[in-house]
Amino acid sequence: MSSSIGENLRLTLFGQSHSSAVGMTLEGFPAGFTLNPDTLSRFLARRAPGRNAWSTPRKEADAPEFLSGLVGNTTCGVPLTAVIRNTNTRSADYSLLRTIPRPGHADYTAEIKYGGHQDSAGGGHFSARLTAPLCVAGGICLQYLAERGIRVQAHIFSIGEIPDEGDPLISAVENEFPTLSAERGERMKALIAEKRAEGDSVGGVVECIVTGIPAGLGDPIFGGMENRISQIVFGIPAVKGIEFGDGFEASRRTGSENNDAWILRDGQVRTETNHAGGILGGITNGMPLVFRAAFKPTPSIARTQRSVNLETGEETELEVPGRHDPCVVPRAVPCVEAATAFAVTDALLGRKRELEA
Amino acid sequence: MSSSIGENLRLTLFGQSHSSAVGMTLEGFPAGFTLNPDTLSRFLARRAPGRNAWSTPRKEADAPEFLSGLVGNTTCGVPLTAVIRNTNTRSADYSLLRTIPRPGHADYTAEIKYGGHQDSAGGGHFSARLTAPLCVAGGICLQYLAERGIRVQAHIFSIGEIPDEGDPLISAVENEFPTLSAERGERMKALIAEKRAEGDSVGGVVECIVTGIPAGLGDPIFGGMENRISQIVFGIPAVKGIEFGDGFEASRRTGSENNDAWILRDGQVRTETNHAGGILGGITNGMPLVFRAAFKPTPSIARTQRSVNLETGEETELEVPGRHDPCVVPRAVPCVEAATAFAVTDALLGRKRELEA
Amino acid sequence: MSSSIGENLRLTLFGQSHSSAVGMTLEGFPAGFTLNPDTLSRFLARRAPGRNAWSTPRKEADAPEFLSGLVGNTTCGVPLTAVIRNTNTRSADYSLLRTIPRPGHADYTAEIKYGGHQDSAGGGHFSARLTAPLCVAGGICLQYLAERGIRVQAHIFSIGEIPDEGDPLISAVENEFPTLSAERGERMKALIAEKRAEGDSVGGVVECIVTGIPAGLGDPIFGGMENRISQIVFGIPAVKGIEFGDGFEASRRTGSENNDAWILRDGQVRTETNHAGGILGGITNGMPLVFRAAFKPTPSIARTQRSVNLETGEETELEVPGRHDPCVVPRAVPCVEAATAFAVTDALLGRKRELEA
Amino acid sequence: MSSSIGENLRLTLFGQSHSSAVGMTLEGFPAGFTLNPDTLSRFLARRAPGRNAWSTPRKEADAPEFLSGLVGNTTCGVPLTAVIRNTNTRSADYSLLRTIPRPGHADYTAEIKYGGHQDSAGGGHFSARLTAPLCVAGGICLQYLAERGIRVQAHIFSIGEIPDEGDPLISAVENEFPTLSAERGERMKALIAEKRAEGDSVGGVVECIVTGIPAGLGDPIFGGMENRISQIVFGIPAVKGIEFGDGFEASRRTGSENNDAWILRDGQVRTETNHAGGILGGITNGMPLVFRAAFKPTPSIARTQRSVNLETGEETELEVPGRHDPCVVPRAVPCVEAATAFAVTDALLGRKRELEA
Repeated sequence: MSSSIGENLRLTLFGQSHSSAVGMTLEGFPAGFTLNPDTLSRFLARRAPGRNAWSTPRKEADAPEFLSGLVGNTTCGVPLTAVIRNTNTRSADYSLLRTIPRPGHADYTAEIKYGGHQDSAGGGHFSARLTAPLCVAGGICLQYLAERGIRVQAHIFSIGEIPDEGDPLISAVENEFPTLSAERGERMKALIAEKRAEGDSVGGVVECIVTGIPAGLGDPIFGGMENRISQIVFGIPAVKGIEFGDGFEASRRTGSENNDAWILRDGQVRTETNHAGGILGGITNGMPLVFRAAFKPTPSIARTQRSVNLETGEETELEVPGRHDPCVVPRAVPCVEAATAFAVTDALLGRKRELEA
Repeated sequence: MSSSIGENLRLTLFGQSHSSAVGMTLEGFPAGFTLNPDTLSRFLARRAPGRNAWSTPRKEADAPEFLSGLVGNTTCGVPLTAVIRNTNTRSADYSLLRTIPRPGHADYTAEIKYGGHQDSAGGGHFSARLTAPLCVAGGICLQYLAERGIRVQAHIFSIGEIPDEGDPLISAVENEFPTLSAERGERMKALIAEKRAEGDSVGGVVECIVTGIPAGLGDPIFGGMENRISQIVFGIPAVKGIEFGDGFEASRRTGSENNDAWILRDGQVRTETNHAGGILGGITNGMPLVFRAAFKPTPSIARTQRSVNLETGEETELEVPGRHDPCVVPRAVPCVEAATAFAVTDALLGRKRELEA
Repeated sequence: MSSSIGENLRLTLFGQSHSSAVGMTLEGFPAGFTLNPDTLSRFLARRAPGRNAWSTPRKEADAPEFLSGLVGNTTCGVPLTAVIRNTNTRSADYSLLRTIPRPGHADYTAEIKYGGHQDSAGGGHFSARLTAPLCVAGGICLQYLAERGIRVQAHIFSIGEIPDEGDPLISAVENEFPTLSAERGERMKALIAEKRAEGDSVGGVVECIVTGIPAGLGDPIFGGMENRISQIVFGIPAVKGIEFGDGFEASRRTGSENNDAWILRDGQVRTETNHAGGILGGITNGMPLVFRAAFKPTPSIARTQRSVNLETGEETELEVPGRHDPCVVPRAVPCVEAATAFAVTDALLGRKRELEA
Repeated sequence: MSSSIGENLRLTLFGQSHSSAVGMTLEGFPAGFTLNPDTLSRFLARRAPGRNAWSTPRKEADAPEFLSGLVGNTTCGVPLTAVIRNTNTRSADYSLLRTIPRPGHADYTAEIKYGGHQDSAGGGHFSARLTAPLCVAGGICLQYLAERGIRVQAHIFSIGEIPDEGDPLISAVENEFPTLSAERGERMKALIAEKRAEGDSVGGVVECIVTGIPAGLGDPIFGGMENRISQIVFGIPAVKGIEFGDGFEASRRTGSENNDAWILRDGQVRTETNHAGGILGGITNGMPLVFRAAFKPTPSIARTQRSVNLETGEETELEVPGRHDPCVVPRAVPCVEAATAFAVTDALLGRKRELEA
């Protein structure tokens, strides 16, 4: 089922942009884990819109209500369900988008798929609003991993042509606009503001690094960490590419350049370089797991665009109503962390099953 | 389970490089489909090693034996199982690789994962040998899709720094070395020969294009075509990145550049450009589905490399025994087609469930 | 994941007896189906407690709120989630049951499984309260099946030693106490009243019949209708046995007695008798699908019972607090219908995938 | 997928009665377990036909060949695949059964399901021959469980109206005809011989008991031990009913009779009686797990039976060719053990994931 994912831990997302609520169910999470609601709220706030100049002005409280799975703040072992109410639903008329689909959006593909029964309001189930419950699930996993010394941290790798700068393994990313270099962050913000002023949008890349991850996570063939992470990360709207370690760059190299020599570091088996991004044969090797996800520019732009009227069967022009993020990348950073935390926790739980024959 | 994949169609791969056989089981394939064994053999021959100068000299017959699921050459609706015998097994001593893991290979991660019980001979279950049964499954799916007017075709997009050239929508890729441009192909072969002579290897990128694919395939969130294809493609050894449509390039663009305008072409809804690679919201939009997969250079190189002796706990040097492909990319082309054909068939079968409420 | 079930249609139940809510998510339900909320409410009312003398006095509104998956009352193709608020939560002190487990209940097994972190209030996730969202899902499926001419109807087959009487294929079961024979129903009610007066409880059997079901539903080996129905029906609390067609009685017969001869009836292939309960090789044969589920007597009885104090490690006595159904069977009838409707709808959706090669 | 089962351990059965081979793949089995092939052979011999007067004269070697998943006799952590060749295939003409289906068999339902493409020879994928690979998988699980002190043992509970006699917890079942009472066994054999002489067949019940099973196995709602065991046991041909603990008998009792009081025995929490069959809320309680499965009489009988000619659309008579078991129950005993061992191992592996938050 396409709104669910996971093998040892199962996440289901539900809700549409303008239904009563969006939410998530997490099955298989261990009993006895005490959740810190403040930490979770702070994490969710990083994704929430309307906080600053570079995101959509829509304000959302985004406070999850846990319907099940907790006793106090401690997991009791059965499905964890949390919902976030949609407060501002059905306010606009979205029937237009069913007739004249927006370029770059799922309006047309949903029309075909659901035979005209899709919920087109606000993007329906395809809305980036669904990353709110993804972040609830991922926020719980992040806390679980942190207790085990595993840290998942993403940052903006680039916006448009502007790259971030710095060493993600030593810099903390604690600023509101999550870059390693504050200076580069300023340039990126200026670019976003410029594109917004032009009624346009811009894409970017998010890099995510998992440190403290033990060797041995992931499984051969279709259950490798690359398979698992890519399957969930492509669930974040606007992702069009993913690469692990040196990724596409590695395809231009020779084996002698790309192989990571095995070395000993403080008695631990490590690699001298980390071109592999911490994954060999799909399985973690004890080095930091590193990947990057490419986000296309927001398709909702203020400019007039060409489309087709599905009812009259004629080409036409369209102005997309509402205001939207000129760049989804800053808000996507916690979403990538959430998705990654889920995939790593799933693999970690699977690993427990294997230990001792 | 990590050696299985698929929702409506379920593929399981089994076998190790040096076990009695490798094989595959395909569950959920419709009854009444007549397989053309010659077409399948020709497809499998494209993957088989030892045919030419740029691949490993190991000769394999790679003829699958169908143990179940067929009556004559027609599917009977129950699991299809085919096996390919491993003829040349256990000839060498691979115990060394357990003690001194090869850089860039899964030797060390398998050692950790299976607690020393892994089958290290020839790479075990992590071997590229497992792409043989993947191609059996994919070859069947390719025939099924072809009957429905859907064509899956991949070509070498680049080797090292050398790109292919041409329009994949109009060029046929029928040469043994699957490039659009014969001249570029010659340059790539020369590069591979050069790296082989240097005891080195080189990576590359495969591009895959699906034409004739109807709009409406794929599902929201985690079941999109990007999620499905990436999950299976990362199951091919050495893949480190994947991008759909313009992928990473799209991250450097603006929305006004990247959005594909909806137009009418012969009364059909199409897009003017195809930056999206035929996928919006995870669902096909009727345009060609386009993606690229990045392959790292073969880690097995003839040069001496640094490693660690896991028994003595000392750093050491290693020469990888045996001879290997200096570049896996040419042989990976049919593997990418096979993986894609499986993912598309799986989505197509799921689509049948939806039609009519 | 154990709180989820289904292959083509996926049902997840969440919630505990005393959490904020119980609910369900249904994934894979076709788009474009218009739900009748009144019919659903009437169906849910059949399960609701507190309506009459033979059930627990706890009053519950049991009105589901649909959070997602509908546009108006029509399914839009994405996950359907409905929640039912628990109004009367945490009123009592259930910590006792963690220390002194009730005989016949899951208190002890949950204590072991969740290491003391289970939600013991009201039975937690093991409570029969979870059959409310099961009935929401099943009620939707019943409407879907009814539109296709498939009717699922259960009745009380026996309470204690008192059997029902009549032909379920010709009698309608529309009385509040769902028996074929009103007279037998009165005798059963009297028995329940008697056991209640004695501070005791009594078990019974529910029979379920599906008419109008086409031949060809279900799959070989582990996906047969018996496998599917038994897997879900054992999810209803207190079920301890299930039999299809003549079931255990068939084990005492000869083949010549038990085989159902193939005949033609109005040009249709039918069987003369229906000892098989409409299923051969796991697949429906076009005859009514018939099965019976055995319910144990409610373990919560007013009498003093023997138990163990897990803290002090001593044997002790226990009086179960609260008032409970002296017989769950009448209220279990719609639950069995709901579970069956889900299993049949799941098989029916799977069947669509198979038609035409 | 219907020929696969299991959550933490995944079993896939493939093959048809008259295809090249039948076989099984077991995914998720832990690495490092050393299999005893002699013990496995002895177990498989208990199921094999042709050994004695009460089974079909077809002789089968039934020796599995392991194609993958082992290094020597030790599991290496990746899919275990074993095949058993079908030696005597396609000898007879089975096309008749497609036209004139046998009463009580899956001929007709397979015809409908697969649209005439089914493999009807020898029952195809519906044949009891598929229990051979089930017993390979189960035989491996039995050895795994035995090492952990868990014993799965079944016996004939009844044949026709003749019950077995004795206490399954104290009697060993080591005779070739697996009853507790040798005298009852003789009476049963006489009944089978009598039915065979009459060209008829007879049904029976198998009881299975798991001792040494720890408390805490199984999961709430749909993943309980009853759900898991029933789902797999209905995969054995001819099973029409299953009951746990006192099962249907419990439905005739009161709560005060049926509840099992908690007691202490040697400092361990136990129940005084075991009406629950060792399962509460779907989860094991530390007492022996007990269930019974009802087998219908073999539908293949020597007598002339009524059927329908699907081609001419006329009622007709049929004599089933070949010779068959007059009673499947004796050979079903190891099959029930195998199925149970799989379900218990699956639950046991799942349990490992839960321990420690």
